[in-house]
Amino acid sequence: MPDSVVIALDAMGGDFGPEVVIPAAAKVIAKRDNLSMVLVGDQERLRDCAQRHNIQLHDRLRVQHASEVVEMSDEPAMAMRKKKDSSMRVAINLVHQGIADAAVSAGNTGALMAIAKFVLKTLPGIDRPAICTTIPSKDGHTQMLDLGANVDCTAGHLFQFAVMGSVLTEAIDNVQRPRVGLLNIGSESMKGNAQVKAADESLVDAPLNYIGFVEGDDIYSDKVDVVVCDGFVGNISLKTAEGVARLIGYYMKQEFKRGLYNRLAGLIALPVLRAFRKRIDPSAYNGASLLGLKGIVVKSHGGADVNAFANAIENAIVEANQSVPQKIQEHIQPLLQRQSA
Amino acid sequence: MPDSVVIALDAMGGDFGPEVVIPAAAKVIAKRDNLSMVLVGDQERLRDCAQRHNIQLHDRLRVQHASEVVEMSDEPAMAMRKKKDSSMRVAINLVHQGIADAAVSAGNTGALMAIAKFVLKTLPGIDRPAICTTIPSKDGHTQMLDLGANVDCTAGHLFQFAVMGSVLTEAIDNVQRPRVGLLNIGSESMKGNAQVKAADESLVDAPLNYIGFVEGDDIYSDKVDVVVCDGFVGNISLKTAEGVARLIGYYMKQEFKRGLYNRLAGLIALPVLRAFRKRIDPSAYNGASLLGLKGIVVKSHGGADVNAFANAIENAIVEANQSVPQKIQEHIQPLLQRQSA
Repeated sequence: MPDSVVIALDAMGGDFGPEVVIPAAAKVIAKRDNLSMVLVGDQERLRDCAQRHNIQLHDRLRVQHASEVVEMSDEPAMAMRKKKDSSMRVAINLVHQGIADAAVSAGNTGALMAIAKFVLKTLPGIDRPAICTTIPSKDGHTQMLDLGANVDCTAGHLFQFAVMGSVLTEAIDNVQRPRVGLLNIGSESMKGNAQVKAADESLVDAPLNYIGFVEGDDIYSDKVDVVVCDGFVGNISLKTAEGVARLIGYYMKQEFKRGLYNRLAGLIALPVLRAFRKRIDPSAYNGASLLGLKGIVVKSHGGADVNAFANAIENAIVEANQSVPQKIQEHIQPLLQRQSA
Repeated sequence: MPDSVVIALDAMGGDFGPEVVIPAAAKVIAKRDNLSMVLVGDQERLRDCAQRHNIQLHDRLRVQHASEVVEMSDEPAMAMRKKKDSSMRVAINLVHQGIADAAVSAGNTGALMAIAKFVLKTLPGIDRPAICTTIPSKDGHTQMLDLGANVDCTAGHLFQFAVMGSVLTEAIDNVQRPRVGLLNIGSESMKGNAQVKAADESLVDAPLNYIGFVEGDDIYSDKVDVVVCDGFVGNISLKTAEGVARLIGYYMKQEFKRGLYNRLAGLIALPVLRAFRKRIDPSAYNGASLLGLKGIVVKSHGGADVNAFANAIENAIVEANQSVPQKIQEHIQPLLQRQSA
């Protein structure tokens, strides 16, 4: 049985703050013995919220006071410098101090990245942390990074992302030698921008299961386990997917409302459509990892509901049990020495 | 009534060559009087194919011989230099010579762009042509460019794409002052890479209906009419959308096959699902414009079927009737003078 895990939760972050975070924490803790959680935020509001939800606070679900809140509109640098007692900062401090094994926040992504990088620092050999998330694919799923932390990336950054993504996938998805692909606009080696071509050259020689270039549609196939790209492209690809899924849902609703037959067919097909919707439910995939730090930080979607936030907590627990930062460090060192040799 | 239009078709291009191109041409010409088409390719194969499909060749649907074919695997530069009598090249030559008003090809995109640029040249003030396509949105559609012709773009290129996209949309979609958005990873002005930020600054001052930054999901909303991005990002976004749509279709099929009830529900819902599928059918959107050239070139998807290729021809006809290159030229000149002033 793994050791007891402690998770620090930024209880004020996201669109709903404690109203989602506390019920999600209670839901996760009810299923586990060897788990503690620290709810970080305004103690009065948190106690009040717990009471309203009939959730008992105890020594495995305790409150740690923090007087400030990072707003969604706050500039990351300002949030870092001016709000030293924010719930986000205090949660990450708990990881830094070794009191918690991981922090989870649904707050401002830029601020979370800036504060996490400042407080925890990056692992030796990692220039920049990356955001990695799980994406559904045909009969499984894909890990994709970076998703917006790094707008401009060199080939060296992409190389580091590839290593981190491979280690994460091996650790949390239990995949041996995950297939790593570099996102490009064609699978031929002559295509792509300079960074992608140079990263491809160094990845070919790396002791990873590097399968070469992949295209945007391959993310959703079962061709690849880890998709590597810069944060600009990754964010746009992810948002595109959200837009397409929403559009298809909208069209389908419209079709099932067009006339009496369609409405009846829709009623009959409802259980199937519900099962289908559950399958593409983004909350099952909520919880992106900030990789490359000396500590575990998981970012929840700002608009996450209780189930979705609970999923982000579960991801943090798996990463803590698997000691993901230590594993990244073990893997990156020999590769970097090799690369610079 | 508009003047008679002549369209040159690369009859050998794409996965199916004349087997798709000739029936598509016959389908389109049957609906119109003031239209001629030139089928360019191996004359024996074309005549044979027309005969097999019971399609009568006549002076409005004639064959022009070309002895070579650009293969999908050909390097663009090689296809341009070595295959001077390719069906693709001869079709574009017909536009250059003023014999045809537009060329349509389902062949190798890179080769088509290289040959079109070499033969037709870009309009004054346009550094690079861009590929623009129509994308379905909630209750209408969006034009998006560039989709892969230009991997690295400066702010100036993005500015030119914005002007070209705006002119195209006004001309072919009959939208007054189309809303132009720049694809970015957030709507705040502090986000994005250097090119995108600089393009944003010059677009704010341009006499376009520029609405600022848009995100990946906005492409599929009704928030914007023209989405501008570099070809690397555009291609990955487009391929992502294809991957997501395919994945959702796969999941839905699986759900409707899970057990007897679901199968019956699927049968009952079949007409609705078919109408839905028709609505997201990519063939209705087939036919991307190569914008910025002194002539009209439309690229069909390589795997297009007869309906899809017919749609690409229809797009070429609309662009010819609307004199899109002339309109781009009229718009770009004063803007560029203004920009450099």
